[in-house]
Amino acid sequence: MAKREKPVSDPQHAIDLIARGADEILKREDLEARLASGRPLRIKAGFDPTAPDLHLGHTVLLNKMRQFQDLGHQVIFLIGDFTGMIGDPTGKNATRKPLTREDVLANAETYAEQVFKVLDKTRTEVRFNSEWFGKMTAADMIRLAAQHTVARMLERDDFAKRYAAQQSIAIHEFLYPLVQGYDSVALQADVELGGTDQKFNLLMGRGLQEAHGQKPQVVLTMPLLEGLDGVNKMSKSLGNYIGIAEPAIDIVNKTMKIGDELMWRWIDLLSFEIGIDEAARLRSDIAAGALNPRDVKLRLARELATRFHDAVAADTAIAGWHAAVTGQGDTSLLPLQDIRVPGEGIRIGALLTAAGITASNSEAGRKLKERAVKVAGEVVEDPATTLPAGFEGVVQVGKRNFARVRLIVG
Amino acid sequence: MAKREKPVSDPQHAIDLIARGADEILKREDLEARLASGRPLRIKAGFDPTAPDLHLGHTVLLNKMRQFQDLGHQVIFLIGDFTGMIGDPTGKNATRKPLTREDVLANAETYAEQVFKVLDKTRTEVRFNSEWFGKMTAADMIRLAAQHTVARMLERDDFAKRYAAQQSIAIHEFLYPLVQGYDSVALQADVELGGTDQKFNLLMGRGLQEAHGQKPQVVLTMPLLEGLDGVNKMSKSLGNYIGIAEPAIDIVNKTMKIGDELMWRWIDLLSFEIGIDEAARLRSDIAAGALNPRDVKLRLARELATRFHDAVAADTAIAGWHAAVTGQGDTSLLPLQDIRVPGEGIRIGALLTAAGITASNSEAGRKLKERAVKVAGEVVEDPATTLPAGFEGVVQVGKRNFARVRLIVG
Repeated sequence: MAKREKPVSDPQHAIDLIARGADEILKREDLEARLASGRPLRIKAGFDPTAPDLHLGHTVLLNKMRQFQDLGHQVIFLIGDFTGMIGDPTGKNATRKPLTREDVLANAETYAEQVFKVLDKTRTEVRFNSEWFGKMTAADMIRLAAQHTVARMLERDDFAKRYAAQQSIAIHEFLYPLVQGYDSVALQADVELGGTDQKFNLLMGRGLQEAHGQKPQVVLTMPLLEGLDGVNKMSKSLGNYIGIAEPAIDIVNKTMKIGDELMWRWIDLLSFEIGIDEAARLRSDIAAGALNPRDVKLRLARELATRFHDAVAADTAIAGWHAAVTGQGDTSLLPLQDIRVPGEGIRIGALLTAAGITASNSEAGRKLKERAVKVAGEVVEDPATTLPAGFEGVVQVGKRNFARVRLIVG
Repeated sequence: MAKREKPVSDPQHAIDLIARGADEILKREDLEARLASGRPLRIKAGFDPTAPDLHLGHTVLLNKMRQFQDLGHQVIFLIGDFTGMIGDPTGKNATRKPLTREDVLANAETYAEQVFKVLDKTRTEVRFNSEWFGKMTAADMIRLAAQHTVARMLERDDFAKRYAAQQSIAIHEFLYPLVQGYDSVALQADVELGGTDQKFNLLMGRGLQEAHGQKPQVVLTMPLLEGLDGVNKMSKSLGNYIGIAEPAIDIVNKTMKIGDELMWRWIDLLSFEIGIDEAARLRSDIAAGALNPRDVKLRLARELATRFHDAVAADTAIAGWHAAVTGQGDTSLLPLQDIRVPGEGIRIGALLTAAGITASNSEAGRKLKERAVKVAGEVVEDPATTLPAGFEGVVQVGKRNFARVRLIVG
């Protein structure tokens, strides 16, 4: 676990920390009052019960939860298994099969393995909303549905768009935000966290809590993290992500490739070590030419590699990255990637693509012509160059794209 | 119980009888096929669980149910107590308090007293939808809600109007048509009957039955009965109704006052004795001047008074009506209405109003001036005329508005 900023008792510091990177806080003065109360707050965040495979984008929310924990508050990691076990009752979405209770528990286990790399286990309550919804009757659901209007529900952005486009909305889809909102009632949440795309559902909770005589929760939305390209949100399907289970060298290598502007954004949303004030100092040092942005990126890369692995793995990855990029130092620190090849070996272009350094053989061909390809530190430009089975060493395109490979027959 | 048309086995006769007075049959060919199958059909009609106080308007549906029974089919009198016991969960409608199970049973008892004046008890199944909905879970309700779309629901006339007028529709209101529709699934209904205003909800049942692998029910809608004024639908609040618990003389007297056109409509919707063919014959006899419409109205009045009382009460009422209207015959056949008056007696105008013959003392004054008022068969025109306590006899305005009164001190 990475070291954290020291717990703060100063309410102004607390609110600044919590507000860092947040998109919206409703209502901020309410959050300030609750933070100042000294009472441990109940911080809720809901998660899908489907099998998770988290990337850095997902950790934005987990980080905010962790900051609340570091301030002494209680986090509730809520798994929405009630609706997950219903699946898609319209039957239109074959991929949303109903989950069994065993599925749910197995997925919760997978969550636990991943999220406790960020969250403090001792201040985390893992709950399942089937705990209260499983006991509810059809009549209870009707009473819950009475708590909101059709017009209000159709204001939700995606419903409004689908309705306008005459795409069908099944009636039970109007019940799901109410289910999520009622979870806040059942949990007596003080604060609910979610992505900006969840704002409507988070506000649901406020309304339902009021209807149930509770003080409405504070709603805090976090922005979606931009991926490696700095433009699109981080996602598996766009390939612009860093998975939290990736090897330390990949976390370092990918982080080192992001643009300088995105670096500041990532620091705000992903770093615990570089605080608000320090980030400001680093910015002005770079502006003054007193600091190379690469060095800040290295700190961030090391922090992330440490969080999802450990300090030794992070140091090794950083050293390997240095060796590969500078052509100096011990490249044997880089992790070894086995690549299966035919008995007669493999052409350099095919190898670069197999190692994930180039996207295609034709891209590899261009890079060879540009004299950008190195094998074991030597420039290679002949596309007919063949590496034999048994070869072990670093192959590289430009400075920052490299892999340490071993060629195995098979 | 009034005598009925003989049971018919001829399918064409059966469909003609069932179609009589109906507003719409969806789908008629399906109804024809089921009627021709020889199997006893399951005929569903749903009723509110609130305390009923039926008038002729309500009996239009009951009559159609009875016709199905006379053809050998099974009628299901469904009381929608599940939603009645929920009440108005928005809390906006204070008059829709949740009913208790005792309320529901007491109201069912009140229904039974009234509806079996029309329905054949031996072919009536009284059911409550809490039987199946009481066992349903919140998850079941979500699955049910998935069976329809928001857009489809907003097509319902009253929802469309309210949505356009920006009047709020609570989300649970979208669930109620589904509840009613699911009742048809639970009951495996072949046919559902309802008013024209229920058409949308009746069609719900078809969709849900199909989704549950059942053949969709036939939907048969009956028009709303026009009240005594021949213009507005019969209703308590408009005062243009005949309650089925009213005295036979009132049933006769009110029926005798309806217009000739309305009479044909009432015959179609309320008479079992005057069949389709006979109604056509009577119409042409009247057109040819061979028959006085009053005689047809008398038959209808007698049939209705017999249905809700008995043959003796009906005959007595008819005879009393004759005596009063013609000024001949035995007015002692008319029911006696006790009216409490001061020791010094009551002025004629106040008496007419107290007996419900005139709407106000000023109307009574005008009628006196017009020489339209009779007391015990004699014209009275002096508004100062006072009838003493102890008086017993017929007071009358014009031919058709009369009452047999007895004045009692008190």
